[in-house]
Amino acid sequence: MTRRIALRIAYDGTNYAGWQNQDNALAVQQVVEEALAKLSGGGRVPIVGASRTDAGVHAMGQVAHFDTETRIPGEKFSFALNTLLPPDVRIQQSWETAPDFHARFSTAGKVYAYTIVNAPHASAMLGRYSAHCPVPLDVDRMNTAAQDIVGAHDFSAFMASGGTSKTFVREMKAAQVSRAGEQVCFMVWGTGFLYNMVRIIAGTLMLVGQNKLPQDALARAIRTHDRLDLGFTAPAQGLTLMRVLYPGQEETARRILRQKLLFNAENA
Amino acid sequence: MTRRIALRIAYDGTNYAGWQNQDNALAVQQVVEEALAKLSGGGRVPIVGASRTDAGVHAMGQVAHFDTETRIPGEKFSFALNTLLPPDVRIQQSWETAPDFHARFSTAGKVYAYTIVNAPHASAMLGRYSAHCPVPLDVDRMNTAAQDIVGAHDFSAFMASGGTSKTFVREMKAAQVSRAGEQVCFMVWGTGFLYNMVRIIAGTLMLVGQNKLPQDALARAIRTHDRLDLGFTAPAQGLTLMRVLYPGQEETARRILRQKLLFNAENA
Repeated sequence: MTRRIALRIAYDGTNYAGWQNQDNALAVQQVVEEALAKLSGGGRVPIVGASRTDAGVHAMGQVAHFDTETRIPGEKFSFALNTLLPPDVRIQQSWETAPDFHARFSTAGKVYAYTIVNAPHASAMLGRYSAHCPVPLDVDRMNTAAQDIVGAHDFSAFMASGGTSKTFVREMKAAQVSRAGEQVCFMVWGTGFLYNMVRIIAGTLMLVGQNKLPQDALARAIRTHDRLDLGFTAPAQGLTLMRVLYPGQEETARRILRQKLLFNAENA
Repeated sequence: MTRRIALRIAYDGTNYAGWQNQDNALAVQQVVEEALAKLSGGGRVPIVGASRTDAGVHAMGQVAHFDTETRIPGEKFSFALNTLLPPDVRIQQSWETAPDFHARFSTAGKVYAYTIVNAPHASAMLGRYSAHCPVPLDVDRMNTAAQDIVGAHDFSAFMASGGTSKTFVREMKAAQVSRAGEQVCFMVWGTGFLYNMVRIIAGTLMLVGQNKLPQDALARAIRTHDRLDLGFTAPAQGLTLMRVLYPGQEETARRILRQKLLFNAENA
């Protein structure tokens, strides 16, 4: 009997060409599919991920699904796969889902975190998971600016070329910028995102925080649809997909937003 | 004129054979000495580190000193060296010291953190900087046990072979075990440590927290001087040298001890 299994996957994206399979580079999807093939004892098992994270982007809560003929209980896949996966890819949870669950199409939203080390020197340890900004950032100004993206807007200015979206209206449910010591963290919860959208917002906020862009830069770009009103695309290594949300998981999003750090009490 | 310069150095120890130079493997000391040679425009500049951290051990606050004939201002070495160093080694601060300052012999103490991810699965991101324990840990029991090392004791049981110490009395000023979500952090402040001492205490505490060793295991080993009363040597990747202390820096130690996480508000 065919069953559908869902996985919640965490990865350090440093050494991967992103989530989605590539011809000439190693993707996280490929690594998980190969582990699954070993476990199932058959050929390659195609898995469908919720989010095509870019090269170098990290995840604490990517979600994927696959179909299996095996008799392995849903909750055991995580333990079995983790023995076959490299340490920078970990299945945090696995479960049997309804047969019509689809990791991508069933999504109700995503929460991303963008981490900036705001100190004279970059961090040797956290540097792997953050961007570095040596100029002091005005976090209150950044947080005020970030509120302008909340709501449903046409975000067509907030997209890198290479995106495949045909509609540009997306709804942001919440956004915040907060500081904890030398760490500045931008967190955003939206129902959907355009290609590179979070990194473009993060780069813009970094310039707003240095007074190099007006505080209403994001609001203006929503009106003008002009990419030139926005800042640079912040580097991939600072971005972490914290969670993919499905209907009814709003409280999970709010809980993550309440945290101020990438590695905080609840996000290990 | 010869001046003595001190460096506060942070490193991700994953890809290094420890601090101290080795014949056949890359040490952090070598990487810093080579950067310094490039900067000084002469031959290799020998530097003296406060702590010989083991292979795989991390540091947020290693301290080292060297002598220079250059005219580079003390506080500029950090910026200049960081342009020459790999991203997993960062000079956090540099300053000119008194000519009789010695990074190792002037030390008044050190603070170490040992991080454990206490969850069914290891962490893909924090895994680089932590040990993993899937069995739920009784943190109150661990913290109570840890208090037994506070004070001046003969720690001869708490030493791996290979250590060069000839005296075994060391003074621990404070120790604590605390939980923040899935992260369990053991922090210890001592005036000096024996070879592998922190990792042996961490491994013992992990067994105390699982009720696999009595709560007084550390106190007993202090009395018996018997390594067999203690647990395993916890893996290097969980250990971080948070700070090397010099006379008058007790408040810095207390501040770090008040934090509950490796990557917290003040330790970026």
